[in-house]
Amino acid sequence: MPNKKLINISIVLRVLSFLLIVEGVFMMSGIGFALYYDESIWPLLLSSLITGFVGVPIWLITRKNDRKNIGKREGYLIVSLTWVIISLFGTLPFLLSGTITNFSNAFFETISGFTTTGATVLTDIEALPRNILYWRAMTHWIGGMGIIVLTVAILPFLGIGGLQLMIAEMPGITPDKLHPRITETAKRFWAIYVIFTVAEVILLWIGEMDFFDSVCHSFATMATGGFSTQNDSIAGFMPYTQYVIIIFMIFAGTNFTLHYFALHRQFDKIKSNQEFRVYFWIIVIISVFIAFGLFVFEGLAPESSIRDSLFTVVSILTTTGFVTADYSLWPSFLWMLIFALMFIGGSAGSTGGGVKIIRHLLLIKNSVLEMKRSIHPQAIIPVKYNGKSVSQQIIFNIMAFFLIYILIFSFGTLTLSLLGYDFETSIGATIASLGNIGPGIGDVGPVDNYAFFSPIAKWLLSFLMLLGRLELFTILIVISPAFWRR
Amino acid sequence: MPNKKLINISIVLRVLSFLLIVEGVFMMSGIGFALYYDESIWPLLLSSLITGFVGVPIWLITRKNDRKNIGKREGYLIVSLTWVIISLFGTLPFLLSGTITNFSNAFFETISGFTTTGATVLTDIEALPRNILYWRAMTHWIGGMGIIVLTVAILPFLGIGGLQLMIAEMPGITPDKLHPRITETAKRFWAIYVIFTVAEVILLWIGEMDFFDSVCHSFATMATGGFSTQNDSIAGFMPYTQYVIIIFMIFAGTNFTLHYFALHRQFDKIKSNQEFRVYFWIIVIISVFIAFGLFVFEGLAPESSIRDSLFTVVSILTTTGFVTADYSLWPSFLWMLIFALMFIGGSAGSTGGGVKIIRHLLLIKNSVLEMKRSIHPQAIIPVKYNGKSVSQQIIFNIMAFFLIYILIFSFGTLTLSLLGYDFETSIGATIASLGNIGPGIGDVGPVDNYAFFSPIAKWLLSFLMLLGRLELFTILIVISPAFWRR
Repeated sequence: MPNKKLINISIVLRVLSFLLIVEGVFMMSGIGFALYYDESIWPLLLSSLITGFVGVPIWLITRKNDRKNIGKREGYLIVSLTWVIISLFGTLPFLLSGTITNFSNAFFETISGFTTTGATVLTDIEALPRNILYWRAMTHWIGGMGIIVLTVAILPFLGIGGLQLMIAEMPGITPDKLHPRITETAKRFWAIYVIFTVAEVILLWIGEMDFFDSVCHSFATMATGGFSTQNDSIAGFMPYTQYVIIIFMIFAGTNFTLHYFALHRQFDKIKSNQEFRVYFWIIVIISVFIAFGLFVFEGLAPESSIRDSLFTVVSILTTTGFVTADYSLWPSFLWMLIFALMFIGGSAGSTGGGVKIIRHLLLIKNSVLEMKRSIHPQAIIPVKYNGKSVSQQIIFNIMAFFLIYILIFSFGTLTLSLLGYDFETSIGATIASLGNIGPGIGDVGPVDNYAFFSPIAKWLLSFLMLLGRLELFTILIVISPAFWRR
Repeated sequence: MPNKKLINISIVLRVLSFLLIVEGVFMMSGIGFALYYDESIWPLLLSSLITGFVGVPIWLITRKNDRKNIGKREGYLIVSLTWVIISLFGTLPFLLSGTITNFSNAFFETISGFTTTGATVLTDIEALPRNILYWRAMTHWIGGMGIIVLTVAILPFLGIGGLQLMIAEMPGITPDKLHPRITETAKRFWAIYVIFTVAEVILLWIGEMDFFDSVCHSFATMATGGFSTQNDSIAGFMPYTQYVIIIFMIFAGTNFTLHYFALHRQFDKIKSNQEFRVYFWIIVIISVFIAFGLFVFEGLAPESSIRDSLFTVVSILTTTGFVTADYSLWPSFLWMLIFALMFIGGSAGSTGGGVKIIRHLLLIKNSVLEMKRSIHPQAIIPVKYNGKSVSQQIIFNIMAFFLIYILIFSFGTLTLSLLGYDFETSIGATIASLGNIGPGIGDVGPVDNYAFFSPIAKWLLSFLMLLGRLELFTILIVISPAFWRR
């Protein structure tokens, strides 16, 4: 009897090659804009063909494999490699169009797109051809699609970082195998994702944006990405446009399960969802506080105070990273609140990155209960979430996640400072990359970009984006020696 | 049958009044210096008498109580109140001598002493009478005595923050009641504490320091406090003195159980102690790295590079806070390493503060094992420490401790920034207080002081010192509503 292989590489290649073909098709979709704006179609067409020429043969060779048999090890490997491979091929439009000539820069920009971070190395965004800007926004949108499937279906199956908690919340999906779960979930949630994107395109188009800008900004909003087509991000658009983007950023940062409930008119399930309530109240309380601060200390008009405050709070909390105001110029106690939001992140099961609100919520609940447990050491006092007890195992997972997050944050900050960047820049670039936000503090503030970093720093930050986007564990497990041993 | 009281207040008062009497006696001990230096004996004498006049009657009234019956609730309350009460009475020498006229300032200085923090509001230390400087150093030494008993005997008994792990390490102490454990431990470890203090006094006195300075600096060293009698801390003393202080800071930051083993010639137990090994290698590696940096980038002589680096690393890691060099002027990647050390802290069972090395060690071990556990979800993979398995419960406790630490750190930083202090100062003052270090970063760097903070900020920082010194939980439990309910 032949020895069963530790990892079925063939299955891994099958999935990755399929995703490459999909990427090639998405690249092709930008050719319409190239034709409309009278730009060269070659960069996108060639990129698409190269990607397809690599993908199709591998897909054909590995077709004997039954994707229903994907195990955990294959799952980790596929997820980790997916973002790397599609980012590698995603650099082609930038490189072939000559808009980014340096490979480190092109990879940084592309992985920043696919991880929905939105940190850019471009200093003059408006100088780029429209079809390349479209591809840049498209990397966000594809990344967001990937993340929805990842956080709602794959990661809970792989038992990562306490997110298995969400399975209990999910309507009617309980198979043990990975494949049916992905198919079922993907159908439901991608539909919601597409509907929201289309709705935002229409609403933005009704305003002052043209169709092209509406599409690009909708892609970036729904993925909580943050790439704009304008050098000053959203600051130059009228209040209507900014409010539309605020609303859709809030939608994008919400657990997509709740949108599913909303479609089925189960509004009580939304109202009673504890993570959503915390998400909602963080936005309201911090926005009101900052709006008040802007009104009093910066002398802004009431409506501007509220709009700038709300936009910035929602943009940073959901890890989108669009900008209407330079918060680094606000009084320090106001921008430090924004900085604090960078450590919170969006809701689980949304396209938002960061630590996620549910983890904070459960950790704070558990911390309060630790006092009670110390006083009554015999009593078993579980954390409750949405009325149900959460197992100690999940709390343990979430704690480990948080500690590793802090560890990686410290490692990133220290390494950047070793590379010669100052305190605030090191902290800001690390959390903005690890949390998939985009703008940070220091030299990577809301009106800055990442062009000045050395190639080593850019690769480090790219790695942090990947770590953060894949909830740390996926990558860490694959690079741990135990993964490659039986 | 009468209802048993929730908390036996009488026992709490009995212990606190006894400690007040002890404090009064310690105050008296400074009168010798007052007479020798021809200073007024009244501030110390009056302070001592007032403290005694409050302590003695309460002690007499409550004498019917059997201290052997101290329960957990009384334990938490006694520990929390002890540092507050002795700090309140400890302000008397400063107030009565007129050296500090403002109560907020006097309380800050005193609790900074008793918590062995060493943050000062004094701008000209050398202007103070010697007997008051002696009392200031004495607050450190008393605080250090308290901490040894607390961390080695009381906190493990109260089950706080994973420190029960240390009980397994302790030779021959296993009674269930609190009182015999304190007595037994106190005898052994205070003896070691006194021996080290006397040895340091002699070694410093042999050098250029006079007897008075030797005593004050030895008190501050062994308690990992950091109050000096000089405005420029240790910078003005010769290398011999600095090396002596380095060695005793290292001793003070070591688990006192290991000193006990050394006295009994059980050196293999010291060599195999994992926390001690990490402690040792952190000092060696970071010191060599920084020494190299100072030699290359600052152009210091080799010996000065090594001495400044070693002194600063040991002073910050052990949370002492003595200063020989202004690390805030070093290249940012060097001072950021020092800043990182502020989050590590000394060894458990030492007089050092902070998170403690053992907690970091166990958390990092657990984080690595989490990857293994994700790959093999069925396997039970415990963390090992010194060859023994550590229960999940203890790891859970330690994680909760760390998360609450981060939470309080964030709360402190945000509150200070709300009070109008800048980013680095808010961060620096918070970690320097919570970690019981003294010098931080920003406006509370190594050559600065805490005089400029508003009274509200000083009370906040005093509270942080208390929280950090009592391993967070003691205070948090007492102020939690569950503590006051049956």
